[in-house]
Amino acid sequence: MVVTVKRKAHFNAAHRLFRKDWNDERNFEVFGKCSYPNYHGHNYEVVVSVTGPIEEETGFVIDLNELKKIIKDEVEEPFDHRNFNLDIPEFADLNPTAENITIVIYNRLRPHIKGVLNLSIELHETARNTVTYSG
Amino acid sequence: MVVTVKRKAHFNAAHRLFRKDWNDERNFEVFGKCSYPNYHGHNYEVVVSVTGPIEEETGFVIDLNELKKIIKDEVEEPFDHRNFNLDIPEFADLNPTAENITIVIYNRLRPHIKGVLNLSIELHETARNTVTYSG
Amino acid sequence: MVVTVKRKAHFNAAHRLFRKDWNDERNFEVFGKCSYPNYHGHNYEVVVSVTGPIEEETGFVIDLNELKKIIKDEVEEPFDHRNFNLDIPEFADLNPTAENITIVIYNRLRPHIKGVLNLSIELHETARNTVTYSG
Amino acid sequence: MVVTVKRKAHFNAAHRLFRKDWNDERNFEVFGKCSYPNYHGHNYEVVVSVTGPIEEETGFVIDLNELKKIIKDEVEEPFDHRNFNLDIPEFADLNPTAENITIVIYNRLRPHIKGVLNLSIELHETARNTVTYSG
Amino acid sequence: MVVTVKRKAHFNAAHRLFRKDWNDERNFEVFGKCSYPNYHGHNYEVVVSVTGPIEEETGFVIDLNELKKIIKDEVEEPFDHRNFNLDIPEFADLNPTAENITIVIYNRLRPHIKGVLNLSIELHETARNTVTYSG
Amino acid sequence: MVVTVKRKAHFNAAHRLFRKDWNDERNFEVFGKCSYPNYHGHNYEVVVSVTGPIEEETGFVIDLNELKKIIKDEVEEPFDHRNFNLDIPEFADLNPTAENITIVIYNRLRPHIKGVLNLSIELHETARNTVTYSG
Repeated sequence: MVVTVKRKAHFNAAHRLFRKDWNDERNFEVFGKCSYPNYHGHNYEVVVSVTGPIEEETGFVIDLNELKKIIKDEVEEPFDHRNFNLDIPEFADLNPTAENITIVIYNRLRPHIKGVLNLSIELHETARNTVTYSG
Repeated sequence: MVVTVKRKAHFNAAHRLFRKDWNDERNFEVFGKCSYPNYHGHNYEVVVSVTGPIEEETGFVIDLNELKKIIKDEVEEPFDHRNFNLDIPEFADLNPTAENITIVIYNRLRPHIKGVLNLSIELHETARNTVTYSG
Repeated sequence: MVVTVKRKAHFNAAHRLFRKDWNDERNFEVFGKCSYPNYHGHNYEVVVSVTGPIEEETGFVIDLNELKKIIKDEVEEPFDHRNFNLDIPEFADLNPTAENITIVIYNRLRPHIKGVLNLSIELHETARNTVTYSG
Repeated sequence: MVVTVKRKAHFNAAHRLFRKDWNDERNFEVFGKCSYPNYHGHNYEVVVSVTGPIEEETGFVIDLNELKKIIKDEVEEPFDHRNFNLDIPEFADLNPTAENITIVIYNRLRPHIKGVLNLSIELHETARNTVTYSG
Repeated sequence: MVVTVKRKAHFNAAHRLFRKDWNDERNFEVFGKCSYPNYHGHNYEVVVSVTGPIEEETGFVIDLNELKKIIKDEVEEPFDHRNFNLDIPEFADLNPTAENITIVIYNRLRPHIKGVLNLSIELHETARNTVTYSG
Repeated sequence: MVVTVKRKAHFNAAHRLFRKDWNDERNFEVFGKCSYPNYHGHNYEVVVSVTGPIEEETGFVIDLNELKKIIKDEVEEPFDHRNFNLDIPEFADLNPTAENITIVIYNRLRPHIKGVLNLSIELHETARNTVTYSG
């Protein structure tokens, strides 16, 4: 019996959409006000989905307290109150679009989830903009 | 790397469930109070999902501002503050159930989204009733 | 000990903003697309607040099941799937703005709530527009 | 044209995570405060999804009022204000994890939905914990 | 300049509405299914409001991290995953209605908030039932 | 008949809590991770409440489309995708706490609302932190 469990987490962070190899005009042309130089920010909501069989002993797919701790250590603690462009190593040369942030979260969590379990990440950047990635 | 991006939009509209080729009794028998003659209405919430590879140059699957504009032109502007039965050509002979409204939205948006990208529409008619259609 | 209890209810209805004693041009000039002739509609959410002392015997200000029934009989049943302009007697000569709907709800509920208790109505017409009235 | 319709329902119930064949220490070690002996509870939100072709006559995949009634009879009425461990027969020897509750809901609803239609259950145990099961 | 700051918290707990000095029939007559003997439960959401002047030095009415800690120590930790009737001393002889729980929360927090600041508690027992108390 | 109408708006912005006349250690001691040097950000939700008599002619306290435009011009356009510390003149020497942002919004809107009408601002900085100010 294959079941999906989801755990929601959140963090508040700043970013701007910006490619270092483009000048400001080109960045503004493509990314609009998302490229303003002094950054803006979001209350990011992350929904982490893990899919797999139920363990007969516990009735769990994965212990949600364990999943909560993994998300806290790998995503909430390092990202909360930080600036994606300046503080997070993966974005040193990567544009912190919602798409790319979602993939980075996936890559951070994947090694901590058993290989038999599928992983999917949903990132709500605003109440109207969402991204999902499943590897 | 295949990613899904979602954009939420909304409009307020009136409708009634009604088949012209049935009499009022038959309509009421099948559609209940949704068939009341003077219409009722909803705050419709639409979530448009677009799935495809990330463009390396921009870090986007699709520019969400472009998607926002397409939804505004094809869905929000023509449907907002309108009556599906009386004002929207697709429903001249089609019952405006949430299912059919969802398919009409899909058909309006599909030509404006590149063929390589998958499209899915989720329509929330009330806080408890939702429909999704993916072509 | 004075406490406020709130009960949320909802109904789906159609309306248009329109004064019969103005012509269409004047109505459109003042009410914009809210005056479109074929109506539009909303998922109205109503929050009914009742304030007063806690009854020592029950620990209640008012029995919420009783309040739920009053709201159902006086508001949900008569308004749900109806058209304010055409179906609801109070709006025969009254423009069904969110403000006026809120006052009508207050006037319908007030006789059913004991005089010692204060009553307040909050009406959410959309996720962004709300009205409150307390008599 | 294959469409998914979803209907949301809810109930309030108590439970504790607990295996009768383990002692209290082992239960606490695995289930933490979810195993506290005097129970705790949740406002469970259930989203029932039904997927299939649109019936041409009605424009419905399934009549949502019929689905609403099935959910009320099979889930809301029997579970609301009840204790999963003590009152619900399926949990006499089954740990009432969110995963297992979701599967029990699926099994209760499946016989009432036509075989040609797919069924999926999403259970929100808290605002942060969700489970889905599709048979 | 008088400002109100609000902090939201939550806990999951079980309860039943029940007076020990009434028999089961009388309890059921007054409290309905809320009096079922094996308890039910809720995801309680608490909004704590503190009103007072802004401190010029910090720009705060009260440090929200300090308020968060007070709520955690006095409300979330002691109530979460507990049974109001059996585990919480204030309800040894007090019916745990939402009204009474709200007053108990107020009484637990009041000594930890400076006297010059007003305190108000809003308790959401379900998505539709809310209580507020301000001393 | 005195009624309150509310209009919700939002913007995404960056900030840090920081006093220029304190050194970094003192700022961190008082403001914690909210003082991190590279900024963080939020999806700010603003609810603007206007209270006054209903105009008999229109059935409005204030035309919500007019209020929407005032909020857009004075709050959404100037604040959206901006950095409070660096881009907004009122915060040149003022710490951009949620309290102070709420007061600045009030001061920007007050001159555009007729004096006979009361104004109140509610700012949601996160899903758990809210501030209100009424002049």
